[in-house]
Amino acid sequence: MIYFDPDKTKAAIVTCGGLSPGINDVIRAIVMGLHYRYGVRDIIGIRYGFQGFIPEYGRTNIVLNPELVKDIHALGGSILSSSRGPQDIGKIVDYLSGRKINMLFCIGGDGTMRATDRITDEINRRKLNISVIGIPKTIDNDLNLIDKSFGFNTAISEVVKVIQCAHVEAKGAPLGIGLVKIMGRESGHIAANATLAQNDVNFTLIPENSFDIEGEDGFLRVLERRLMERGHSVILVAEGAGQDLFAGDVTQKTDASGNVKLHDIGIYLKSRIEEYFKKRDIDISLKYIDPSYIIRSVPANAGDSLYCELLGQYAAHAAMSGRTGMVVGLFKNEYVHLPLSVTSSRRKVDVKGNVWMRVIESTGQPLSMKNEK
Amino acid sequence: MIYFDPDKTKAAIVTCGGLSPGINDVIRAIVMGLHYRYGVRDIIGIRYGFQGFIPEYGRTNIVLNPELVKDIHALGGSILSSSRGPQDIGKIVDYLSGRKINMLFCIGGDGTMRATDRITDEINRRKLNISVIGIPKTIDNDLNLIDKSFGFNTAISEVVKVIQCAHVEAKGAPLGIGLVKIMGRESGHIAANATLAQNDVNFTLIPENSFDIEGEDGFLRVLERRLMERGHSVILVAEGAGQDLFAGDVTQKTDASGNVKLHDIGIYLKSRIEEYFKKRDIDISLKYIDPSYIIRSVPANAGDSLYCELLGQYAAHAAMSGRTGMVVGLFKNEYVHLPLSVTSSRRKVDVKGNVWMRVIESTGQPLSMKNEK
Amino acid sequence: MIYFDPDKTKAAIVTCGGLSPGINDVIRAIVMGLHYRYGVRDIIGIRYGFQGFIPEYGRTNIVLNPELVKDIHALGGSILSSSRGPQDIGKIVDYLSGRKINMLFCIGGDGTMRATDRITDEINRRKLNISVIGIPKTIDNDLNLIDKSFGFNTAISEVVKVIQCAHVEAKGAPLGIGLVKIMGRESGHIAANATLAQNDVNFTLIPENSFDIEGEDGFLRVLERRLMERGHSVILVAEGAGQDLFAGDVTQKTDASGNVKLHDIGIYLKSRIEEYFKKRDIDISLKYIDPSYIIRSVPANAGDSLYCELLGQYAAHAAMSGRTGMVVGLFKNEYVHLPLSVTSSRRKVDVKGNVWMRVIESTGQPLSMKNEK
Amino acid sequence: MIYFDPDKTKAAIVTCGGLSPGINDVIRAIVMGLHYRYGVRDIIGIRYGFQGFIPEYGRTNIVLNPELVKDIHALGGSILSSSRGPQDIGKIVDYLSGRKINMLFCIGGDGTMRATDRITDEINRRKLNISVIGIPKTIDNDLNLIDKSFGFNTAISEVVKVIQCAHVEAKGAPLGIGLVKIMGRESGHIAANATLAQNDVNFTLIPENSFDIEGEDGFLRVLERRLMERGHSVILVAEGAGQDLFAGDVTQKTDASGNVKLHDIGIYLKSRIEEYFKKRDIDISLKYIDPSYIIRSVPANAGDSLYCELLGQYAAHAAMSGRTGMVVGLFKNEYVHLPLSVTSSRRKVDVKGNVWMRVIESTGQPLSMKNEK
Repeated sequence: MIYFDPDKTKAAIVTCGGLSPGINDVIRAIVMGLHYRYGVRDIIGIRYGFQGFIPEYGRTNIVLNPELVKDIHALGGSILSSSRGPQDIGKIVDYLSGRKINMLFCIGGDGTMRATDRITDEINRRKLNISVIGIPKTIDNDLNLIDKSFGFNTAISEVVKVIQCAHVEAKGAPLGIGLVKIMGRESGHIAANATLAQNDVNFTLIPENSFDIEGEDGFLRVLERRLMERGHSVILVAEGAGQDLFAGDVTQKTDASGNVKLHDIGIYLKSRIEEYFKKRDIDISLKYIDPSYIIRSVPANAGDSLYCELLGQYAAHAAMSGRTGMVVGLFKNEYVHLPLSVTSSRRKVDVKGNVWMRVIESTGQPLSMKNEK
Repeated sequence: MIYFDPDKTKAAIVTCGGLSPGINDVIRAIVMGLHYRYGVRDIIGIRYGFQGFIPEYGRTNIVLNPELVKDIHALGGSILSSSRGPQDIGKIVDYLSGRKINMLFCIGGDGTMRATDRITDEINRRKLNISVIGIPKTIDNDLNLIDKSFGFNTAISEVVKVIQCAHVEAKGAPLGIGLVKIMGRESGHIAANATLAQNDVNFTLIPENSFDIEGEDGFLRVLERRLMERGHSVILVAEGAGQDLFAGDVTQKTDASGNVKLHDIGIYLKSRIEEYFKKRDIDISLKYIDPSYIIRSVPANAGDSLYCELLGQYAAHAAMSGRTGMVVGLFKNEYVHLPLSVTSSRRKVDVKGNVWMRVIESTGQPLSMKNEK
Repeated sequence: MIYFDPDKTKAAIVTCGGLSPGINDVIRAIVMGLHYRYGVRDIIGIRYGFQGFIPEYGRTNIVLNPELVKDIHALGGSILSSSRGPQDIGKIVDYLSGRKINMLFCIGGDGTMRATDRITDEINRRKLNISVIGIPKTIDNDLNLIDKSFGFNTAISEVVKVIQCAHVEAKGAPLGIGLVKIMGRESGHIAANATLAQNDVNFTLIPENSFDIEGEDGFLRVLERRLMERGHSVILVAEGAGQDLFAGDVTQKTDASGNVKLHDIGIYLKSRIEEYFKKRDIDISLKYIDPSYIIRSVPANAGDSLYCELLGQYAAHAAMSGRTGMVVGLFKNEYVHLPLSVTSSRRKVDVKGNVWMRVIESTGQPLSMKNEK
Repeated sequence: MIYFDPDKTKAAIVTCGGLSPGINDVIRAIVMGLHYRYGVRDIIGIRYGFQGFIPEYGRTNIVLNPELVKDIHALGGSILSSSRGPQDIGKIVDYLSGRKINMLFCIGGDGTMRATDRITDEINRRKLNISVIGIPKTIDNDLNLIDKSFGFNTAISEVVKVIQCAHVEAKGAPLGIGLVKIMGRESGHIAANATLAQNDVNFTLIPENSFDIEGEDGFLRVLERRLMERGHSVILVAEGAGQDLFAGDVTQKTDASGNVKLHDIGIYLKSRIEEYFKKRDIDISLKYIDPSYIIRSVPANAGDSLYCELLGQYAAHAAMSGRTGMVVGLFKNEYVHLPLSVTSSRRKVDVKGNVWMRVIESTGQPLSMKNEK
């Protein structure tokens, strides 16, 4: 069952991409699992993501052991730091083989998992004996086949606090509007679940549910009616919502990880709402809140800690038993190993499903804010 | 699909037994669901549990509406208050029929569900048209067939905080011991999961896993060895653990709800440990923490709020569609209605299963602390 | 000692301007004090600030009693809502005299205190017997003669959490910068104290301490040096800092309360920093956080609750003893009544004083970031 | 101004007695201050209190530097651990002189300050050049001449949470009583201030205010009346309250630090209350909460962090400027050095003063619960 000899095992851990609550918990669990269960004594942390493998950056790695990691679950972020963007796969494998590392754990998003796949290919091509295990990270909880991603539970808790603030602000002024932009590039799971957990949201806007801004059934008119009836309104918008409203804009760019830079729907809605009511001579009080870094950089809560602990342990087991080119995750309540490629597609909120129907009920927003053609 | 005419519907909600985080969330969700989805306008809250139905107690009920319940999820406990112990089933049904109540929601533990079953029987015997729906409450998360009980998630979060304190105290003094007694009358789910979420526990004692106090393999000797090696120790004990240690004690009593009064394993361990080390002239510093009321009376966290919201909504739907004598719950990730009797048996921690094996790994405690016969 | 007959006393409470933690605590303490200590039974809450006095707005007031206010200290914001901007003083006094109100409590900022002063003048002119008491509100803690303003303590706690997040983000990426904009229109008390409470800030920029952006000793060069040496940087900027950098901009406006609209120093620094490093071909990772509404809309913490409780009680006592045209506050650790006019000048951070010297030490920033002329 | 040459300075820090929030903050501030402001590079932490100086215990010390202490303010307790009880003064000074330590910082309670005084005497007797600075620790906030002690602010925040739980429990059952025992050996500052911060307490019992249990005006009768009128009651008792009720008990002991072991007033009240109502055939529901270790072992909140930071800095300055045999503290809002002996007397709650009068008002308890003689 144990494929590697613990005495000859050298493990490396790397964290890539944006922060998410629980990264340190996963690092801790891998180190604790390798050390206490298998007796592995040689574990290093690669600093600043894949940059840490590339000599030109001059990053030094750090030795990881139980003493160093024992309290890191109390800290947000990643003790290894992170970076974005691809690096030369050949140089990464050079680093691993040059330092006789035979076990690599990659914690990161879908770009990282694609790179991890290519690293595995290059290892196989060179006929090296190195296990590569991915621990997929996406605070948005939109991995296919995987029940939940770590950090999601904490994100909901934090978003709920922000919604409470937005609600307090909205009720605190005449025709008060609290507009909150949160995570959710391609899916609205955080927005939908936070809406149901808090129940003070009146509009939940997600990427899966296209809406019009103008027109009789469009968002602005519906908002106006709500505001006139109830005196205040809370709007929760996922960052990936309403991107079709920017169609025709040719200035779109990509970031270092190759992700398309989204148009800022939060700022856009803010200015469209203010402009709309100004034209109608209606004094509103709009408070815009964009809390994203505050949400993703907190320590994991107990639920996520528990989950990260198990993910890390399973990752350690998977590697020690010689598996490679896999991710670990929870599938129908069982911990499983899946091929790295599962992380390349996204699970969406089903806008005909139960969860979204309950969001519609909870918010009172119309099923559609699209105008008839 | 709607069985009752909302205009002629009068609903009542009652909360029984001990407190658990999320009761107010469930009340809120039932009221909001009945009011906004079905247009039910006549909803009352029965005060102080089943006592509220019995004229002799002179309890007045209160009118429940969205205005009153909108912020109650921010409060711990039950806005309706609660009570323990059985009441005359005939008088309860008299109350319902006398006030033309045709929908009753009972939130409570297994004793309450048994009473709810008898109420349903009496309603049927009298050929009354009253729907009775149970929402089972057990912070211990040990309902058979039901994935999780509300309040459990919050309890884990709170217990984790207490373990952190016990750990700080244990490390803060020479041969420091932090001893924490928590909930878990018949099952150790809270203890096991909190252990895995925090990772600072060295002994997790649960009802499912019998142990000896004395003898070479017994708890005290194992504790001594741990203490001598590592200098401190954190012990987490579920209130139902080690009850066999009191065998032969004939003074056991039952409380008003008919539950057997457990022997206080926390106080017992405290005195046995102190006595043991005193005999050996070893100066220990034992800090005993019994946080139970602090844990169960906090407001629900976001995870539990979300779950309670859905439980309450499904309860409202179940009643409006004419179902009766049912409980609502999550079964394999789907919301279902089950007969009231499912709540009468307990789900235990499987001491041969994955979760318990991980607890053994995390704590480092022996698989068994029973002496050879 | 009691000037008004409780049976004939009708009190009104109004909250104006922006939100601050503790407003509900003050409302609660006034109501509890008047009710339980003096037996006043007729207390109303004016809704939406001074708008609530003006018939044209059609705002209804609400009855305040212990039952309604007992739990409001758990909520952020103001249960009475608020509004900005002046209203007709004559109409306000008409409202008071028309409804036989003989006691008015105004909770608000310096604009509100000026209005309160004019209301008192008009009451005196009409020879009415109405006590007017101000409870000054400024989260910035910059009232002259008054030891501390309510909400300040809570604000520090919340800002500290945000700094932790900014620090996590800054350390999480190569050349990471966490830039946080917080409150502080005319004074940097929050920024200075939060810096000292958390110790992870590297630059604290406040209105009292002018700085240059460009040049050898200017902010950007100093930041670059810090970043090159330590790899990351956390910047905390009060909203009123660096306003002289916008000199010559003629587009400046005022808000409904008459406050000058500040230039957005946060957004300005963000773009100047990004532009600066882009020109030098240095890849930085800047995370900008603007948490203000999240900070001011949380419930008061225990320290502020305690203080608000006392402020409210003293306000009630001051009114019942016939005082008028006063504010209540803490002066050298004693509760005192001061004339309304004390709130018109600001207490600044002394940049030659102890607190600022410790900020310089804690951050390691230069004493001056002004270039030699 | 600098008395010691930083290059030749060797500093030691020791923490003694029970835990209090903020100890790690003080350690951190001393280390940071010595390192960054004065360039001291040789700082050690003595482990397990004064035991760490005594060879027989075999405790190893640890090297303290900015890297090690930078995040310790996020942890409760003391990273150096602590111990109780006196040790041989001669051996302590042998340790200091043997290792050429010329600067000692002692964090601890009044027993520790007395020992620190004797250490200073012995140093003087031997004509050694060692600065000794005390940082007095008492969560009870009862130091004479010193405005506030560190940890007190955090303790209030935590006690407030517990009172909320007790209130929820008391309201959750028929004739519910929430009984909370908290710190306060000789003074009731925590009890009094937490009462005013939360306002849900109905009886506040402190050492300074003696009361009778029995008799017409005694506590039990007053409690019964309150309970009959309002249906529930919350009681907050400081551990040092009511000790005269145990007069004549000759079994009293002292702990390792020489403190008299108090009789357990919490358990005593619990059993007296239960017995009283049982005799009268009144079914009450009493929930007893003893949270002390949970309160004192949490990390310091922002207010205490800020204060500890300054205390630690001033301690470092005091030592570097050659002062010895002093404590640092805040006196009338200024940081001062005072002789060690100031910590030997206690500041009491003035039961004729403003604070206690407000407690009487807030709780509604009688001014005296003593029977007429």
